[in-house]
Amino acid sequence: MLQLLEKIRIILVNTTHPGNIGAAARAMKNMGLVELVIVAPKRYPDEEAVFRAAGAKDILHRAVVVDSVEEAIEGCGLVLGTSARERKIPWPLYDPRESAAKAKLSLMAGNKVAIMFGREDRGLTNEELQKCHFHVHIPTNEDYSSLNLGAAVQVLCYEMRMAVLADKALQKNHAVTATLLADAADVERMLVHLEQVLVDVKFLESGSSNQVMTRMRRLFLRQQLDAMEVNVLRGILKTIQRAVN
Amino acid sequence: MLQLLEKIRIILVNTTHPGNIGAAARAMKNMGLVELVIVAPKRYPDEEAVFRAAGAKDILHRAVVVDSVEEAIEGCGLVLGTSARERKIPWPLYDPRESAAKAKLSLMAGNKVAIMFGREDRGLTNEELQKCHFHVHIPTNEDYSSLNLGAAVQVLCYEMRMAVLADKALQKNHAVTATLLADAADVERMLVHLEQVLVDVKFLESGSSNQVMTRMRRLFLRQQLDAMEVNVLRGILKTIQRAVN
Repeated sequence: MLQLLEKIRIILVNTTHPGNIGAAARAMKNMGLVELVIVAPKRYPDEEAVFRAAGAKDILHRAVVVDSVEEAIEGCGLVLGTSARERKIPWPLYDPRESAAKAKLSLMAGNKVAIMFGREDRGLTNEELQKCHFHVHIPTNEDYSSLNLGAAVQVLCYEMRMAVLADKALQKNHAVTATLLADAADVERMLVHLEQVLVDVKFLESGSSNQVMTRMRRLFLRQQLDAMEVNVLRGILKTIQRAVN
Repeated sequence: MLQLLEKIRIILVNTTHPGNIGAAARAMKNMGLVELVIVAPKRYPDEEAVFRAAGAKDILHRAVVVDSVEEAIEGCGLVLGTSARERKIPWPLYDPRESAAKAKLSLMAGNKVAIMFGREDRGLTNEELQKCHFHVHIPTNEDYSSLNLGAAVQVLCYEMRMAVLADKALQKNHAVTATLLADAADVERMLVHLEQVLVDVKFLESGSSNQVMTRMRRLFLRQQLDAMEVNVLRGILKTIQRAVN
């Protein structure tokens, strides 16, 4: 069961302090996670990261640095985003324990799972949060809620380990509903395609920022689509385009 | 209930790096704990502690430095000691979640609870561990079990907060995720409308029994749509029909 932890990808977005990247690597390795993807870090590689990683330098060695969140989530069936604040647009929101339980089911069905952490000062942007199937909120003191990045990674990795170690009896009930999810990148492409179709049929104006796509995004991400569903939806979208043009 | 957290005393024994004392203070404050006792630290006070404490300097200000574990646990009804390794002398041993549940009961009965953390390199001595009512073991990767001290404090404080929040957490999540669902009849009409559009754009043949609608049905029913989502979907379907005809 512990191998499931190796199918979790920790994604750090625009991290400012390299020490936090090192601390995250250490927290991951302590809990048995291995896959780290770093999106456009401010200072990295850096010796401060290596120092704080302590015995987890191998995690940094195999870490991948990419330019965008889109690249970072490629290949993952389920994407979780950590969120410190209440957002205007409600999105499914769970605490770390509930999130870990959901992630575990998804891992058991053969999916890769990404857990995304934002900037030290501002977290993830709304746009980034909208690429997630659901959000994770670590309950904190209302008077002092700014959790250190390494500490947040520690809590999530700990909960993932606890979930994977948890007794099997509980899992049985859920196993039936777990299915192999579509690649997050394919879902993303489907949503881009959908937006184009809505422009083609003049439901939306091109380039307008809009509530409708936010709603559609939330609707389709909430459903955790499987690969076949995404294929069918893409087929429908193509057919609509042909019919309109 | 959250005031219970203020009756927990975190005890750091013989800490070597002042940065870890600061990180522990920050982790405590994030989770709503306030009482820190430091036993014979190597370097303290120290500006590195203040730096790593970030917004939790008040925890350091009110922290008490003592010479011995005996002084540190004075006034506490229940004492927990963190332990990384199996010890020769068997002692009651629980994971952080079980420990937090037990600690909560003790707090509710009016006790003060101490959680004791040892040296960065060697943990607590056997003698110190034998002053504890029971031991807490954070489950870690066997190949790399040395948890950073601040991270260990974070995990325990987090579990204490989760235990104290237990009933509340459930209510809160329901409040966030509970929305007014669409009338089942409206969802049904939307699905009929969708099928008509798929025929209009020639994705489906009229009157054919088909797998596609079964899939669409499962997809849209799986995630209980709210009324607004159904409205938007109906609007999109109408617009597509107008564009095609």
